Amino acid sequence: MKIHINEVVTRDGFQMESKIPSISYKLDLINSLIDAGIKNIELTSFVHPKYVPQMADAEELFSKIPRRSDVTYSAIALNERGVDRAQKAKADEINLVFSLSETHNRKNANQTVDESIQFVQKLLMGESVLQEQIPINIAISTAFGCPFEGLYTKEKLFPIIERIVEYNPNSINLADTTGMANPKQVEETCYAVKSKWPNLKVGLHLHNTRGMGLANVIAGIRGGVTHFDAALGGIGGCPFAPGATGNICTEDTVHMLEQMGYDTGIDVDKLILASRGLEKELEKTLSGQIMKAGKSSDTHTA
Amino acid sequence: MKIHINEVVTRDGFQMESKIPSISYKLDLINSLIDAGIKNIELTSFVHPKYVPQMADAEELFSKIPRRSDVTYSAIALNERGVDRAQKAKADEINLVFSLSETHNRKNANQTVDESIQFVQKLLMGESVLQEQIPINIAISTAFGCPFEGLYTKEKLFPIIERIVEYNPNSINLADTTGMANPKQVEETCYAVKSKWPNLKVGLHLHNTRGMGLANVIAGIRGGVTHFDAALGGIGGCPFAPGATGNICTEDTVHMLEQMGYDTGIDVDKLILASRGLEKELEKTLSGQIMKAGKSSDTHTA
Repeated sequence: MKIHINEVVTRDGFQMESKIPSISYKLDLINSLIDAGIKNIELTSFVHPKYVPQMADAEELFSKIPRRSDVTYSAIALNERGVDRAQKAKADEINLVFSLSETHNRKNANQTVDESIQFVQKLLMGESVLQEQIPINIAISTAFGCPFEGLYTKEKLFPIIERIVEYNPNSINLADTTGMANPKQVEETCYAVKSKWPNLKVGLHLHNTRGMGLANVIAGIRGGVTHFDAALGGIGGCPFAPGATGNICTEDTVHMLEQMGYDTGIDVDKLILASRGLEKELEKTLSGQIMKAGKSSDTHTA
Repeated sequence: MKIHINEVVTRDGFQMESKIPSISYKLDLINSLIDAGIKNIELTSFVHPKYVPQMADAEELFSKIPRRSDVTYSAIALNERGVDRAQKAKADEINLVFSLSETHNRKNANQTVDESIQFVQKLLMGESVLQEQIPINIAISTAFGCPFEGLYTKEKLFPIIERIVEYNPNSINLADTTGMANPKQVEETCYAVKSKWPNLKVGLHLHNTRGMGLANVIAGIRGGVTHFDAALGGIGGCPFAPGATGNICTEDTVHMLEQMGYDTGIDVDKLILASRGLEKELEKTLSGQIMKAGKSSDTHTA
């Protein structure tokens, strides 16, 4: 079975880093990822550099990446200005993000959830600043729970998905933004979503904040999901969990899936090299395990 | 559903530590674990202190622990001398260990696998140094793979289990000693073992070396296993994976299981406090996540 990985290291990964990597390093990294077989990259966010200085080079990065017919570059936008910038930069896809949590959405986008949904609907109808046909993915942050409001049930999530699905998004990405979801919740939620909307392309954005990241990947697959975000080295994170791990680690995820017989189309050895390079660049120990332990198939001399 | 945790921090955890904790710290730790609801503790190993200096205090530790009718203390032995010492120290159960890997068994116990099995059989028949009736558990190290020989299939494992089951051990513990097993392999192996020997008590000893630890716990439960070893803070490890994580972390495991609705009978908050104390004692950052991120049910003020 094919499992699709969307690499978010340059976006969700770098967003939490105090040391901002140079454009030339970012381009080297992207080339390494593509060489390893990565086909989908969430490259950056078109947000105000005052709030996220790590993404201030969004236009420049898009102008310099190697454009290839087999690689899709997406970018995050939270509002009209962001969508406009993403289009001008020729992003292949736009990822609109809002939170299921009122508190989190207010802090992140300075909007109510209802305002965000209305914006999303307008964009999906091709109105507003949208100049041409471009796939629009909708990411629902804190879809399983929010650090301010606690864990959510699917009864809170479903009416929100309903309001988006009507407008035919390219995909819906359910984000466990702060790593709160457990495998039972992930499997049940994904299974329920895929049962209700069988033709909807559903992705999962998982964090390993509480160690459940890879267990949640399997839970998602059991629930019918085949698209997963991941960040090289497991970087990224959550301000409420200092020292805890971040996004699920791309090479650890790919390693586990390939060991289990799934087909990711990605070369783990090349990812390991890229991840070790990232560790040098960021000058800190990353949370990825395979980069330290090697693959299960590696053998040592007695 | 009830899931049983066997705490191995003072044995497999401390075995890899360069700083050897004092007896008084170990006793404080054990009291904290019992207070948190831990009912099974693999306390120490009766091995030669030349090879494992961390376990040199095995007799003293057994003489000072709080004896309770609701807490079982087990100890590892590899040979007759170890069994004799464990009995004299009044261990509640003895865990005999050998490796499925010839190479690993030779290095660890200086015996062939066949010699180890013959020893195990002799003990299970009540012969040799065994003075009284005492439950004997058999732990098969490198049951899923060995860093020298690679991954194993159940075709290698089953004939070995067969030779032990005949002699009615109290339980068989399948150990992924160096964290090589993947969830598909764990689920299939456990399911096959439980199908073939439905009345056999089977435990899993899992490591998180390649990030698959908690995914393997769920795989084990799906395969019919309800007994798991774990170490507070996720300490322990493997000499071939420097910097990688060790045993599955007790508090992360309990947290995930409780979130999923399983009953461990263990208080996560008390484990977190014990784990933070362990971090201070060992003077290094531990790999446990819940001790840094808190529980999924914790909420923050916006």
